[in-house]
Amino acid sequence: MDLTRRTMLAGTAAAFAARADGAAAETPPAGTASPGIYRYKIGSFELTAIYDGIWYRPINDQFIRNAPFSEVEHALDAAYMPHDRLATPFTTLIVNTGKQLVLLDTGTGGQIAPSAGVLRANLAAAGIDPKAVDRIVISHFHPDHINGIKDKDNALIFPNAELMVPAAEWAFWMDDGNMNAAAADLKLTFRNQRRIFTDIAKQVTQFEPGKEVAPGVETLPAPGHTPGHTVFAVHSGDQSLLVLSDTAQHPAVFARHPDWQAAFDIDGAEAVKTRKKIFDRAAADRMLVTGYHFPFPACGHLLKTATGYEHVPIEWQPSL
Amino acid sequence: MDLTRRTMLAGTAAAFAARADGAAAETPPAGTASPGIYRYKIGSFELTAIYDGIWYRPINDQFIRNAPFSEVEHALDAAYMPHDRLATPFTTLIVNTGKQLVLLDTGTGGQIAPSAGVLRANLAAAGIDPKAVDRIVISHFHPDHINGIKDKDNALIFPNAELMVPAAEWAFWMDDGNMNAAAADLKLTFRNQRRIFTDIAKQVTQFEPGKEVAPGVETLPAPGHTPGHTVFAVHSGDQSLLVLSDTAQHPAVFARHPDWQAAFDIDGAEAVKTRKKIFDRAAADRMLVTGYHFPFPACGHLLKTATGYEHVPIEWQPSL
Repeated sequence: MDLTRRTMLAGTAAAFAARADGAAAETPPAGTASPGIYRYKIGSFELTAIYDGIWYRPINDQFIRNAPFSEVEHALDAAYMPHDRLATPFTTLIVNTGKQLVLLDTGTGGQIAPSAGVLRANLAAAGIDPKAVDRIVISHFHPDHINGIKDKDNALIFPNAELMVPAAEWAFWMDDGNMNAAAADLKLTFRNQRRIFTDIAKQVTQFEPGKEVAPGVETLPAPGHTPGHTVFAVHSGDQSLLVLSDTAQHPAVFARHPDWQAAFDIDGAEAVKTRKKIFDRAAADRMLVTGYHFPFPACGHLLKTATGYEHVPIEWQPSL
Repeated sequence: MDLTRRTMLAGTAAAFAARADGAAAETPPAGTASPGIYRYKIGSFELTAIYDGIWYRPINDQFIRNAPFSEVEHALDAAYMPHDRLATPFTTLIVNTGKQLVLLDTGTGGQIAPSAGVLRANLAAAGIDPKAVDRIVISHFHPDHINGIKDKDNALIFPNAELMVPAAEWAFWMDDGNMNAAAADLKLTFRNQRRIFTDIAKQVTQFEPGKEVAPGVETLPAPGHTPGHTVFAVHSGDQSLLVLSDTAQHPAVFARHPDWQAAFDIDGAEAVKTRKKIFDRAAADRMLVTGYHFPFPACGHLLKTATGYEHVPIEWQPSL
């Protein structure tokens, strides 16, 4: 079959006209990624999931402390992931309460991996000016959650935002005794926190979990991953969203295998206990959830299975 | 804890300044959905998944011909779906080969359900002018694949596009004997096809499966769902994408249960045979796949499990 000839014979008159006028028949490629934004509603609150990109985190056979690596490899295979890197996507959340624009965690600030750091471009695509963000609430002090407070030159990315952080995170990480006692790689984490927080310490409000950090935005303690690791419950009208933060990182690994203690958990056993408690509640109550390292747009539901939990992504809605 | 007071005390000077100048502290909600577009590459081809929305298709206990409805309900539960409606998202694909803009299937044209018909808005968000589409290739003649050829007033939505359709589809559906012999509800499908095709019949090119419909876009027979149902293999460089069309509708139901024959399959047994053959190949070869009714952005991989297949969505890439 001569496709070219056939095409020409079958072409519509309009198509010929378009080409006869000398206009290029070829449409140039866009050449850039499409926006990583997803807008949805909880009651009267408008939420926007803002993608910051993905880090392929190097892992080795010590990655999970309490499972043989052969089992970990099996889980990675089931997720079409390589064995030497953990897919670690980053999705932050903007909550527009109608009164305030609240940002939950801040992304990498482009300071973690070349494949992450598109938060600002996606904010722009969502029509959100960083200057309009009223409040930033931090779940915990790992760099992929706090580095987006500042750009690489240490200028504030959200200059008008009040900063709220878990008191227990501040107490643990800003303690120089803890820093001095830490292993070398963890010392880098402590130093990074000082780079982010020291010169703006007076602008930081510490909160205790269990309190609201904005009307309709509740905080709940979720220790283990870090001592002050916090999750959020967003409530409006009769709807809720549970923001799981790092209660589980990629669900194909940690929701399916809730017992696994990752090397990056400060207290692995407590992280597992917290994960099961929160996931059990979310599954039993059929709560809408979102996880910071769940695949974009990250929101969905948790289903309890015989061996763990399955994340069931929501269907993408074409309207609000 | 008095949050309001605490907030005020802790607010940064900049935040106070922003509010003292009389500017509104509240950011208005966007009020509209974010775009349903996802751009990716296969070799040098730029692909754009364009979401048309979702239909919650009414189903009853006759929906699957060869399984008890209790099993179907179990599958729906695992997908957080209700028992009386099947989530049926629509994702079309634009392939920019560098020479041509090829559209694979056309969406609903807004003529199926109020929650679908956002294809044109999403094309605009992707910067694609419907007039620039050079070629439309149709997988089969069900209304959610062909109605987007025309708007509800029967005007061509892609006026410069050549239209290519599977010869076996044309032969089956445009046969008035088949139409007259069909049950009442299927007669509506036949009549809709005449509305779409009759007045533009001379502009339609029929193709035999196994042939390319554009350089790098191969067609493969996939009968069962309909007699001429066709899948596509897009090749560029050393990369490929298999476009599964309706080989399986929602993967939570039909990939996990490949033996199930849906009431909407013309030949359920043949649809199952086709599904297993194609899915086995895709899983064995670890092919990138996309399905017309897979959750947006619809592309990913298939994993063979003990009982069927699992669709593993790709991780959203922040760059091309």
